[in-house]
Amino acid sequence: MKIAAGFVLGMAVIPRHGDLKYTFGGVAPAARIQPGTRIVTWTEDCYDGAVTKPGQIPSKVQLPGHDNPQTGPFYVEGAEPGDTLAIHIEKLEPARDYGISSSFPGFGALNSTDRTALLHADLPETVWFYRVDREKNVLRTRSQDGKRSWEVPLAPFLGCLGVAPAGGEARSTIVPDDFGGNMDCPEVRAGNTVYLGVRVPGALVSFGDGHLAMGDGEIIGTAVEGAMNVELTVDLIKHRETRWPRIENGEWLMSVGAGRPLEDAARVAFKDMVAWVREKTGLSEMDAYEFVSQNARAPIIQIVDPNYTVLVKVEKRRLPSGVSP
Amino acid sequence: MKIAAGFVLGMAVIPRHGDLKYTFGGVAPAARIQPGTRIVTWTEDCYDGAVTKPGQIPSKVQLPGHDNPQTGPFYVEGAEPGDTLAIHIEKLEPARDYGISSSFPGFGALNSTDRTALLHADLPETVWFYRVDREKNVLRTRSQDGKRSWEVPLAPFLGCLGVAPAGGEARSTIVPDDFGGNMDCPEVRAGNTVYLGVRVPGALVSFGDGHLAMGDGEIIGTAVEGAMNVELTVDLIKHRETRWPRIENGEWLMSVGAGRPLEDAARVAFKDMVAWVREKTGLSEMDAYEFVSQNARAPIIQIVDPNYTVLVKVEKRRLPSGVSP
Amino acid sequence: MKIAAGFVLGMAVIPRHGDLKYTFGGVAPAARIQPGTRIVTWTEDCYDGAVTKPGQIPSKVQLPGHDNPQTGPFYVEGAEPGDTLAIHIEKLEPARDYGISSSFPGFGALNSTDRTALLHADLPETVWFYRVDREKNVLRTRSQDGKRSWEVPLAPFLGCLGVAPAGGEARSTIVPDDFGGNMDCPEVRAGNTVYLGVRVPGALVSFGDGHLAMGDGEIIGTAVEGAMNVELTVDLIKHRETRWPRIENGEWLMSVGAGRPLEDAARVAFKDMVAWVREKTGLSEMDAYEFVSQNARAPIIQIVDPNYTVLVKVEKRRLPSGVSP
Amino acid sequence: MKIAAGFVLGMAVIPRHGDLKYTFGGVAPAARIQPGTRIVTWTEDCYDGAVTKPGQIPSKVQLPGHDNPQTGPFYVEGAEPGDTLAIHIEKLEPARDYGISSSFPGFGALNSTDRTALLHADLPETVWFYRVDREKNVLRTRSQDGKRSWEVPLAPFLGCLGVAPAGGEARSTIVPDDFGGNMDCPEVRAGNTVYLGVRVPGALVSFGDGHLAMGDGEIIGTAVEGAMNVELTVDLIKHRETRWPRIENGEWLMSVGAGRPLEDAARVAFKDMVAWVREKTGLSEMDAYEFVSQNARAPIIQIVDPNYTVLVKVEKRRLPSGVSP
Repeated sequence: MKIAAGFVLGMAVIPRHGDLKYTFGGVAPAARIQPGTRIVTWTEDCYDGAVTKPGQIPSKVQLPGHDNPQTGPFYVEGAEPGDTLAIHIEKLEPARDYGISSSFPGFGALNSTDRTALLHADLPETVWFYRVDREKNVLRTRSQDGKRSWEVPLAPFLGCLGVAPAGGEARSTIVPDDFGGNMDCPEVRAGNTVYLGVRVPGALVSFGDGHLAMGDGEIIGTAVEGAMNVELTVDLIKHRETRWPRIENGEWLMSVGAGRPLEDAARVAFKDMVAWVREKTGLSEMDAYEFVSQNARAPIIQIVDPNYTVLVKVEKRRLPSGVSP
Repeated sequence: MKIAAGFVLGMAVIPRHGDLKYTFGGVAPAARIQPGTRIVTWTEDCYDGAVTKPGQIPSKVQLPGHDNPQTGPFYVEGAEPGDTLAIHIEKLEPARDYGISSSFPGFGALNSTDRTALLHADLPETVWFYRVDREKNVLRTRSQDGKRSWEVPLAPFLGCLGVAPAGGEARSTIVPDDFGGNMDCPEVRAGNTVYLGVRVPGALVSFGDGHLAMGDGEIIGTAVEGAMNVELTVDLIKHRETRWPRIENGEWLMSVGAGRPLEDAARVAFKDMVAWVREKTGLSEMDAYEFVSQNARAPIIQIVDPNYTVLVKVEKRRLPSGVSP
Repeated sequence: MKIAAGFVLGMAVIPRHGDLKYTFGGVAPAARIQPGTRIVTWTEDCYDGAVTKPGQIPSKVQLPGHDNPQTGPFYVEGAEPGDTLAIHIEKLEPARDYGISSSFPGFGALNSTDRTALLHADLPETVWFYRVDREKNVLRTRSQDGKRSWEVPLAPFLGCLGVAPAGGEARSTIVPDDFGGNMDCPEVRAGNTVYLGVRVPGALVSFGDGHLAMGDGEIIGTAVEGAMNVELTVDLIKHRETRWPRIENGEWLMSVGAGRPLEDAARVAFKDMVAWVREKTGLSEMDAYEFVSQNARAPIIQIVDPNYTVLVKVEKRRLPSGVSP
Repeated sequence: MKIAAGFVLGMAVIPRHGDLKYTFGGVAPAARIQPGTRIVTWTEDCYDGAVTKPGQIPSKVQLPGHDNPQTGPFYVEGAEPGDTLAIHIEKLEPARDYGISSSFPGFGALNSTDRTALLHADLPETVWFYRVDREKNVLRTRSQDGKRSWEVPLAPFLGCLGVAPAGGEARSTIVPDDFGGNMDCPEVRAGNTVYLGVRVPGALVSFGDGHLAMGDGEIIGTAVEGAMNVELTVDLIKHRETRWPRIENGEWLMSVGAGRPLEDAARVAFKDMVAWVREKTGLSEMDAYEFVSQNARAPIIQIVDPNYTVLVKVEKRRLPSGVSP
């Protein structure tokens, strides 16, 4: 892996609310950075910061189209289509001492939506506030009637991390696709590196939609959502194409697929992993197909966004080795 | 949970090949057992035992329709529609010192099939033999050219465990559905209890298709397949309906959904888990929807069988508790 | 097309209610017939005849599993796997002067079902009676409040026509698949010939579920349903395999595909039509792909049964001809 | 239906190639028009005019992202979100005496694609030229080996007709969605009126991708494609929201749904038709559900674009009427 020249620079960029963006692509860069720049910044929550206390109904206090506000985009000097960004996430911390989760009318996995378009009346829009307990490293909330409580382990990640799409497209920040975007993937977390293929000059990378925790499927339509303090470094790998988002750490190779129906999102990620294993090991296609078949972990990420997402993971230490003579 | 009267009896039932069955439903019972009976037996591999050495092509040596031969079915005395079987799996061990995996023409997640019916020529039918290394607790195989090798941790489970379906149906042993069947679920393993709703008098429970290990998705169409020594106890819970298969152990509640497209399999399992959490805690539906949304793990089980399967898991210790006054 | 030897015999078989069947496969033949036999008979409606007057709620008066009762099955002498039945439908007439349509809880295209499993409460079970106006050749009904009326042109067909499936399976009469079954296809009508591949000795062909009319999609879950007087002739084509149901008349070639998601049902039918065009014309695969792409009609048949069905049609007179020198 | 004030003006706008657009949204208007303006213009073919003679391979001569070039967009004075454009298509004629069809690698219904991502090698990229025979009103082509020929009736329509999407999005001209776009719908033809909801001030309506003929499904990925002479009038209906594209003529009401899987595209269109029938007749929801269920025609439009499209049609003369006392 050849890392482009560049030096690491701490650059604090705390965006004003008016500078937040609501699309991937179609917007001017917030800043230009050299490859290798460490960005120290902050992201607003998915509610655009409009929900601040119990009793508020998100769909009434939030402007339409103002979901998942983005910090950025950053124009990466020298990045061109055919290159890859390697984004090292160094730190993600809740910026407030609460998180919010809610159902939205017409959004979610177990209710009628704009596409799974049925004749049922909407389920009631409902909101839960979660306390961040940094000591116990959990989130805590109560049932609507106040009689029951539960905890969720704190596990922060960025729901959105993406570059501008190809072909002059601009996509809503609720959409995940080959450019990354609203992947809602728990592995976009501190300690991991995310690879995104560059589609436009400068890449125009942005991020937001901090999740304090989320179950697989994100079935109600939201995670435990919260503003986030973010530190990450954006590196550039010249002349390496990345068709679909990849994530890596010391132990795992991970591919993210997006699409509908859900089996197509899975096929995308599995096919990418077969290719990645071949790149790493030189296996034939059929051998790599078999290897991934017996070794993959494949959690459903979410089944609520305009494209569904699936993660396929393979442990590096399981990768085939040469046979000793 | 009221367990029906019954005593535990060790009963060794080693079936002859001619007694194996290839459907759930539509076949006479192999034996009648009392609830609480411990069954000590053996299952043939998914290839009907026809593939015994490298060089054999499964589709040429195996009779059509002879996939996933079943041991059983067992008629459980007193079991009636509206009841539930609780099947405690006590022991699963590879019965041979090798396992087999292969691709089949027109079967698999990354190739044209009978339903995802495309114009491409089939991928080549390919077979891998795996050695069972009981000491290291791994399976080991080589690439087709013999130059690379890889290991997979041994993790035995039963691909098939099912009862006779409702409505006079008899289903192929490659099909998973609400009656269980070919769920290919790694949690059908020693230490876990599987709940299946009874659909016909006597339930007619059978099992087979031992998997020595399998990755999520089972994308090439097979796990590492092998004959298995099996010990399990079949209990009967009277007057409890179980609509979809559930699995439980000391730590987890698990629901299995089946269907196509894959999001429908997921919806089935998630909806069942929302209901299960409500049964356990008394939460309202919206609260349970939120709870599962933030706490579920949801691996894809397989995307190759006539119905796809998804597992949804929730940790018991995360279940909501009462709020202290 | 070589028709097997056989003579045409008018055979009136009016089944008693107790002789009706509720599965394809798994039941003994009602009669044995020679190829070429003309069957003159009658079919009960999809409600098993249990709904006879307004005010009755189908799910309360109909036995569970008693949907789409079948007349038959008929054992066709000499029919073996690898052969094809050619079923010429000569006459279909409403046997009563009313038809019935209704919604069922958990069944239909625009509501939560057992697979598209959502948290919404069921839509209300609702029934419409239609008068058969033989003079005007229409069906007529009223809105639930009695204030509005509408007509549907009478267009009778058999919702169910199928043979016993392969592999020892028995399938519910609500299921369509490669063996035919509950295709709900409006082209299974008088004047057309339906080809079904034989899966078991004797084929075991049966039919029922008369539809007086139906819109594409059958979205509420039922057509205008009615008992039917039926005349059809069952011919046998030896040594011709038919993988998926085909329908033919003087003007059209038609393939029926079944599966989920709906695009898979479509792929099955389109792929079969590409093959059929090649059989008829000798076109290359890519040419046939292009020809079908520009010439097919492809109505959605239904999106409510356990498998969805799609019809793909090509006009015979459009088939490619040789280029004159 | 209140038509906004405006006068009909013939306005010839023949775009230069450099003025063609490749997205819906994200581009400046080509012209500003008053509601009621008749636009007399021309559209380039889907190949961006780059394929001009047999032997050329589209993927080699066409710039990436230059599919389906658009004439426009037109800024409609006074159009605001919450309004509807009524686009009356008056004339569509092939602008050249040939049309082109081709397969693209990784695009099509019966081959592996970017989402139905399989391991098969691509099918060969293949091109067919069709002669336009204006006298016989057909298109004519030959098989690749020149030995067979076939005809397709000339039936011109616009594959693309759309407005700028909401939320700051810009979408590729290969995408259909609620804003119209690449619907590939044969009913976007002379004699019909298309209703599109306005999403941004001025609506920014554009069109292109002339199809000389197309089969249902568009399975090879293209119709018979051709440049087109176009005459249409853009009217504005103030204060009427249109959530999904609708099409109307003297005989039919038609709704277009887009999405994946295909059943979701169908659900969108069927749900919209249930609503439209209620608007026209005052029927209750359940009655309208039943009425559409028995009266709809629902051809698959295409199963190749990023969203699939389905058309649902109801004959106006079948709409319920009042019951005479």
